[in-house]
Amino acid sequence: MDKKFMQRAVKLARNGMKNNQGGPFGCVIVKNGKIIAEGNNSVTSENDPTAHAEIVAIRKACIELGSFQLTGCELYTSCEPCPMCLGAIYWARPDRVYFAATRNDAAEAGFDDEFIYNELDLSPEKRKIPMISLERELATDLFSEWVCKEDKMDY
Amino acid sequence: MDKKFMQRAVKLARNGMKNNQGGPFGCVIVKNGKIIAEGNNSVTSENDPTAHAEIVAIRKACIELGSFQLTGCELYTSCEPCPMCLGAIYWARPDRVYFAATRNDAAEAGFDDEFIYNELDLSPEKRKIPMISLERELATDLFSEWVCKEDKMDY
Repeated sequence: MDKKFMQRAVKLARNGMKNNQGGPFGCVIVKNGKIIAEGNNSVTSENDPTAHAEIVAIRKACIELGSFQLTGCELYTSCEPCPMCLGAIYWARPDRVYFAATRNDAAEAGFDDEFIYNELDLSPEKRKIPMISLERELATDLFSEWVCKEDKMDY
Repeated sequence: MDKKFMQRAVKLARNGMKNNQGGPFGCVIVKNGKIIAEGNNSVTSENDPTAHAEIVAIRKACIELGSFQLTGCELYTSCEPCPMCLGAIYWARPDRVYFAATRNDAAEAGFDDEFIYNELDLSPEKRKIPMISLERELATDLFSEWVCKEDKMDY
């Protein structure tokens, strides 16, 4: 771990906030002791609800590496990731994550992270955004095709 | 609900799979009875671990609407969303979600959704990807600045 990378993530967060790009969140991704990608929250300026600092940095790092995997990388984020970003981290599979503020700190500052964590633990029909099953067989048939597909690339 | 929108989502999923763009997942977003955005998984072709069908469709729909919110929209996805996509859905706030296959169906077809759901319920230090707290005060100071910021745009 290296505090200077976290300090950089917090600086990105502060700059993004001051420039009204989005919320106060920043992220850097490090490989072999060097920053390979940076990001800050730009939800409101980009009209992109997925443009959290971690997602922005992960997408840039993958472009940089020409890979959909962040093997050998460390991610420094100014706040414990929300469920969306945590999911993205698991799909990208960096070696390690460092975070500064906690999810409770984020909730106290007015962000929905804790609410979303709680919603994820409910069954779909009990969530605040109604989630309804429809035409299941169409998709399970497709999954069977996927399982049998010979030239597929796993991810 | 309208089955033809789910059929379209599954068709996008099948086409993306056949074209080796990524896994067998598709999504459409509907407003006022019309499709305003479509997406299919393109993780492996785009080298983007966040390019799940729902994320792709949400980003396109927000560009289409010029908004970071999907108020008044319905999202049809060929599979119950993974935690990343579910998080994105909560941030985008559509009115309703329809899904075909379940997360268990996805797990049986070899996708990590269930593993990620389980990891999210663990405390950070117990997860398979190590997650370590560092320099918390730097970020909580920043959150205090955010709370006091007068010209901020909430999201």
